[in-house]
Amino acid sequence: MEYYQLTQTNLIDYLKWLPEVQLRLSSFDNLKVQEINDGNMNYAFVVTNTLDTNQSVFVKQAPPYIKVLGEQWPLTRQRMTAEMNALSYQASVCPKMVPEVYYQSESLSVVIMENLSTHALLRTQLIQGHYFPRLAEDLSTFLAQTLFYSSDFALSSADKKRMVNKSTNQDMCQITEDFVFTYPFEHHDMNDYNPALSQSIIDSIQKNANVRAHVAQMKLIFMNKPEALLHGDLHTSSVMVNAQQTCVIDPEFSFAGPMGFDIGALIANLYISYFSHAHKSSAESVNYSQCLLQIIDDLWYKFEAKFLSLWSEHEQSVNCAFMGKDLTGDTHQRFRVVFLKQVLSDTLGFAACKMIRRILGVAKVADFMQFEDQTLRAKLETQALKMATTMLVNRQAYTNIADVNKLAENVSSDTPK
Amino acid sequence: MEYYQLTQTNLIDYLKWLPEVQLRLSSFDNLKVQEINDGNMNYAFVVTNTLDTNQSVFVKQAPPYIKVLGEQWPLTRQRMTAEMNALSYQASVCPKMVPEVYYQSESLSVVIMENLSTHALLRTQLIQGHYFPRLAEDLSTFLAQTLFYSSDFALSSADKKRMVNKSTNQDMCQITEDFVFTYPFEHHDMNDYNPALSQSIIDSIQKNANVRAHVAQMKLIFMNKPEALLHGDLHTSSVMVNAQQTCVIDPEFSFAGPMGFDIGALIANLYISYFSHAHKSSAESVNYSQCLLQIIDDLWYKFEAKFLSLWSEHEQSVNCAFMGKDLTGDTHQRFRVVFLKQVLSDTLGFAACKMIRRILGVAKVADFMQFEDQTLRAKLETQALKMATTMLVNRQAYTNIADVNKLAENVSSDTPK
Repeated sequence: MEYYQLTQTNLIDYLKWLPEVQLRLSSFDNLKVQEINDGNMNYAFVVTNTLDTNQSVFVKQAPPYIKVLGEQWPLTRQRMTAEMNALSYQASVCPKMVPEVYYQSESLSVVIMENLSTHALLRTQLIQGHYFPRLAEDLSTFLAQTLFYSSDFALSSADKKRMVNKSTNQDMCQITEDFVFTYPFEHHDMNDYNPALSQSIIDSIQKNANVRAHVAQMKLIFMNKPEALLHGDLHTSSVMVNAQQTCVIDPEFSFAGPMGFDIGALIANLYISYFSHAHKSSAESVNYSQCLLQIIDDLWYKFEAKFLSLWSEHEQSVNCAFMGKDLTGDTHQRFRVVFLKQVLSDTLGFAACKMIRRILGVAKVADFMQFEDQTLRAKLETQALKMATTMLVNRQAYTNIADVNKLAENVSSDTPK
Repeated sequence: MEYYQLTQTNLIDYLKWLPEVQLRLSSFDNLKVQEINDGNMNYAFVVTNTLDTNQSVFVKQAPPYIKVLGEQWPLTRQRMTAEMNALSYQASVCPKMVPEVYYQSESLSVVIMENLSTHALLRTQLIQGHYFPRLAEDLSTFLAQTLFYSSDFALSSADKKRMVNKSTNQDMCQITEDFVFTYPFEHHDMNDYNPALSQSIIDSIQKNANVRAHVAQMKLIFMNKPEALLHGDLHTSSVMVNAQQTCVIDPEFSFAGPMGFDIGALIANLYISYFSHAHKSSAESVNYSQCLLQIIDDLWYKFEAKFLSLWSEHEQSVNCAFMGKDLTGDTHQRFRVVFLKQVLSDTLGFAACKMIRRILGVAKVADFMQFEDQTLRAKLETQALKMATTMLVNRQAYTNIADVNKLAENVSSDTPK
């Protein structure tokens, strides 16, 4: 089928011929189509049977341009193929943590999937100070399962290379290369600074050759380390939650990259959330910001434990190890620990770049933007920038997340200049 | 054209219909076909016009199996496509340092190229103690040009990713993964040890969890760092020399990998040559082994200087830098130095693995095998193994090659136990 754009007007005509959708919507006579305007890149609709509102589907289509910018900003539809590829892979290793896909069409760049009507965006929930006790447990499972099973430790060398080639997502990687790793650090026209943010703190990053060299290293690692199939944009608005379930959505940036990039994205946004709460003096806020640090701590340690356990179980079950036979009894374990230390270092480096770009770059986050008082916002942004630069340049030295949490607490309790 | 195997009998019939070969051989009436039996993987022939022996061509064909092992050891012919791809790329950036290709056929997996009749294998020449004053200058140029122009510093992000995908060479990478990074370290059936080599020195590698973890890290880097288009097997038998020219041949292992793998292969084989000379007490041998260390030193520093110079010239000429704008005047240089330090560390790690595998693995080198006295050979092998393990585990700490040369000298002058 040749590509055409789905709209509120033609969507039902398209859906009613699809058996996979007929299974979900018992009648096509009383459907309501609601366009969702959240996303910047793609068109999205929720289609609900008004006679039984439990029956609904979510429809996402990538146009050959950036939706919010219009046709004069072309962007290939490869991103939707990457999203299909990622959703299918994630469902195969973590079926309960991604929306179920009912139907997909590569020629139309459309995916029709489960409508997560009872879930809310994690970022919004964190801003509102809600607790999600399952969060660290669930997200560490998602990370361990998706990263391990697409790595060289689980796949044969041939299967791994096929996966890497298949998951090329050039346009979206280019966006990350530019908007995460380059523009925010070079005083680019596309940047957007809070007017209350001091020039000296901006300069302490952009005009610091050492910091810049570390950022460039992270950019190079991003582009040259196809360790595993990543989500590629795992911030807190790519996670939907309710009391029963944690669900990861929108893997349109998916590609084969460094494991630390996914973990770092999550941790960066959790630290941003931390700074947005920790400056408040109420007992409730103190408690909530401590809880956020605990989530970060749990997230890493649970990820590490689950990854190690998947690894040793897998190598025992196939009776073959990536590094060859263990002749001493501690050889396999030694390498695994060294490997995960490297993942931690990458994680902290990527988390730092992600935090900085949300402050100096064009794409902001509501955690900070909710504060209309620019001076207050600048204070929090300054804390986040200070933490990020320290974490970045010392990333190889950290052996645990507790020390990184201490850094966050120290930075937050310091009165900014 | 469907694949068929070229032989001494049918080769001339095939060649005489090719205009590109007609240009090189003025007559087809008096050709001599000589099969070259050096290579393990592929068939090779030299075809000479006996009326004018200056007229000759070199013909190389990959069968769908490993030549020396026969049809029961299948191997895809992708290796010859990789070789064509690499020869074409290398010729584009270093035209005088690779054999000129006259004709190639992907369907027959055949390349017809310049016959380097006046050149000799570098390894053989080093064993015989010959001097090649151009060596460090030429090979550092080859490395700087080929590695820089296929890196993210020279290519656009899109072109780089296309290059990486196009240069997949799964079968040959798998051979390296197994025979360089795995079997030699796990006491595999395919290994082959000098009976005079002490078990304790073998155990100091295979049963040392720390060494093994470092080797596994190098294997993972080999598989997960598509920095540049590599030669992939750059030892001293992949280099042909005469007084006027240094020529790099046989890039059938070519793929997108870490820069240090090519540099490390060369350095590993030069250190092996060093140990094969340094134990002799004659003034000539002392002088020659010092000369080898000087070549290694020159090779690295000349590579580093040329790479840095290509990098800064390129970024000036395109007015665009990988890491974004330099706002301080020293930011670009800072990153470049950090980057090359990482390349040095990779180089030493890969050199170590390559040295070890030539001693514990199945594929030996003539530099050591020339010594029929197993005890003498074991002494030299022990020196090389000791140097390699030290270099491997300390690879991040070295900031220059002079210190690595000192290590080689110290190890060589110690009386082995």
